[in-house]
Amino acid sequence: MSDIDRSRAQQLMREADIDALVLFQPEAFRYAVGAHAGVATMWGRAGSAIALVPADAGAGLAAVVSDHAAPLVGKAAPDIDLRCHRIWIDMVDLSGVETVAQVDDAYRRNNSGGPRPETFDRAACFGLLSDLLRERGLSAARIGADLEFMPAADFSALRQALPDVNWVDGSMVLRRLRAVKSEREIKLLKQAAAAAEAGLVEMAAAVRPGVALGQLSAAWKSGAQAHAAKSGFSLSGHWDYISVGPALSDMTAAVTPGALIKADVGTLVDSYSSDGARTFSWGPVSALAADIFKALEAAFACGLEALRPGNTFGAVHAAMLASMRKDGFSEYYRGHFGHSVGGGVGIEEWPFFSHGNPEIILPGMVVALEAPFYGEGLGALMIEDQFLVTSSGAECMNNLPRTLRDLSAN
Amino acid sequence: MSDIDRSRAQQLMREADIDALVLFQPEAFRYAVGAHAGVATMWGRAGSAIALVPADAGAGLAAVVSDHAAPLVGKAAPDIDLRCHRIWIDMVDLSGVETVAQVDDAYRRNNSGGPRPETFDRAACFGLLSDLLRERGLSAARIGADLEFMPAADFSALRQALPDVNWVDGSMVLRRLRAVKSEREIKLLKQAAAAAEAGLVEMAAAVRPGVALGQLSAAWKSGAQAHAAKSGFSLSGHWDYISVGPALSDMTAAVTPGALIKADVGTLVDSYSSDGARTFSWGPVSALAADIFKALEAAFACGLEALRPGNTFGAVHAAMLASMRKDGFSEYYRGHFGHSVGGGVGIEEWPFFSHGNPEIILPGMVVALEAPFYGEGLGALMIEDQFLVTSSGAECMNNLPRTLRDLSAN
Repeated sequence: MSDIDRSRAQQLMREADIDALVLFQPEAFRYAVGAHAGVATMWGRAGSAIALVPADAGAGLAAVVSDHAAPLVGKAAPDIDLRCHRIWIDMVDLSGVETVAQVDDAYRRNNSGGPRPETFDRAACFGLLSDLLRERGLSAARIGADLEFMPAADFSALRQALPDVNWVDGSMVLRRLRAVKSEREIKLLKQAAAAAEAGLVEMAAAVRPGVALGQLSAAWKSGAQAHAAKSGFSLSGHWDYISVGPALSDMTAAVTPGALIKADVGTLVDSYSSDGARTFSWGPVSALAADIFKALEAAFACGLEALRPGNTFGAVHAAMLASMRKDGFSEYYRGHFGHSVGGGVGIEEWPFFSHGNPEIILPGMVVALEAPFYGEGLGALMIEDQFLVTSSGAECMNNLPRTLRDLSAN
Repeated sequence: MSDIDRSRAQQLMREADIDALVLFQPEAFRYAVGAHAGVATMWGRAGSAIALVPADAGAGLAAVVSDHAAPLVGKAAPDIDLRCHRIWIDMVDLSGVETVAQVDDAYRRNNSGGPRPETFDRAACFGLLSDLLRERGLSAARIGADLEFMPAADFSALRQALPDVNWVDGSMVLRRLRAVKSEREIKLLKQAAAAAEAGLVEMAAAVRPGVALGQLSAAWKSGAQAHAAKSGFSLSGHWDYISVGPALSDMTAAVTPGALIKADVGTLVDSYSSDGARTFSWGPVSALAADIFKALEAAFACGLEALRPGNTFGAVHAAMLASMRKDGFSEYYRGHFGHSVGGGVGIEEWPFFSHGNPEIILPGMVVALEAPFYGEGLGALMIEDQFLVTSSGAECMNNLPRTLRDLSAN
């Protein structure tokens, strides 16, 4: 199922004065069409999978897909107008076939024979897109493509293949669309956040002096995977940035009494990544670490206070930075105190809680709010939680207390 | 350490009439500089990490990196001229600092304070590149960029920022460079192939009627990881396309007597991916499956015979297709019968053993040769091995027999 709110898409496209979005990035294709773009996108090139989203919310979606991906795309998105191109993988329906002599007939019967390209035929893909645009009366339209993805080499070929289209960068429209989540996306992000948090619980249980960073990472992963399995979903990926002790990039560090343990972690469910972080120790931390964490707690609370619909992303950044300043950190800077989360290429997605960002916080956004501090020679400290923006505020997707937890006290 | 053969790079750039390569793709940066490009490349945008490879083999390499990545890049590549830009992550050296009041001084002492961008400052990155080009006398040079990666939005900004440069697509030079491997790359690809094959051994041992595809996948992964751990290296990733039985996309299938089991698998070592495949069964397969496999064995042997330095990639494809034709498959087509392997974005890399490909097979290339057959209603069959091209032929990196193995016979 497409995750696009077609009515909002229409409004955003009208504001940007474009007649349609044409999306080439595999993640954007997945978002628009509701099915994976297929193996021919593995090289990060444009053309093998293309989604057409007309501005007119009443006009149906259309897509260009490979013959290899078509059966699954058609099943997942039966209402979408699909156009197929042949890729390098030779497949044939041999149902009922018993001898080699009958194999050729099967190819002919299923129209699956004939030459295939080295990988995929970009010109054929652009030709199918051209057909679609012509049928929709969009051959000379103003069309937004995802130029923040599209390789320059492919864009150059696209412009030659469809010279009458007025191509503009549709990335900002796509960013804004993606930032407000569908029910399905919210569910995936909640599942991912819960799995990551279950991992933190298992990681915390494994902390004791002498335990190595790698063991904490393994415990985290194991807890996250066990939670997902128990809850009936599977993880499509996971990542962790765990640091132990004062040397921030020492991946061989082990827990010592009083050392800071920072775990910034996420799991992916159907490619949607959570993002969250907690800080732990075994035994009391230094007075400086405790003071810094207090400042982070205060900054986080100020950010959360500002995290409400109608406010700007920049206001959250300003509130958090002001809190750090008030607590005596006049040289601490941080480019952003969090960001949207979703199914894009980076763990962090636009918009960001950054300086002066005028973007408005909207209900239905899912964001990670973070207050981090990286002190080489001291250690890393961080609080990060994931929130669904509601009509009146923000609903937290995490449950662990936001304290710097001394695990020797258990 | 850079994996670039500077003398070959000079020759290829002279032939392409370019004065330098400027590389933006994270994988290309890693290849040229010998260190990872850093977290600011997570969005697939261009600028945060840039490698400059002058055509003149006597001129040193240079790079633009983030202040966050710089320490590790500088350590891995001490001879490379590095230029740093600030990203969103605030880090400070707090060695010897005990109170909040001293933290500001630490920022100033280490010059780590001051505003930071939302993510990274693309204009600043392009400015640093401009400095480098000016210092090298390349401000108005003809420069090859990796336009098969570079997002069109970033390329447009780059051309505005450095208007005097004559930008051309350097992708083909980069492809040719990457196709011949360094000793380090060959070692990684051998390790990856060995791990994947150890996984196949463990997977084969797990095969018996009723065992599910997911269990075979888990057994494969476990065997691959155990091999890596035992051998003293770690896997940076892994993938598997396993099919069981006649329904090719049934991920819930279980082994039944006579069903085809195809495992096309790879592991990654420091981002270099192996690629290899075997076919198994439990009990005898159908006469048709046996006949098809015989044809694949013959085609593979013909391809291997043609796989030697000086021959073209196209000649290998022609030899294999001719073999299939001789065995009665006149409608079987396959876009390629294998490809280079390496540390790029896709599992499969250019060049491909494809129809009419004039690219010459060279010593030092590492390739995967594959003979696949996908019959819906019958099952998948495949033989694939990885080879190092030597001065006289091809050295296989795999050891398992290329037969369709009946595992009930053990």
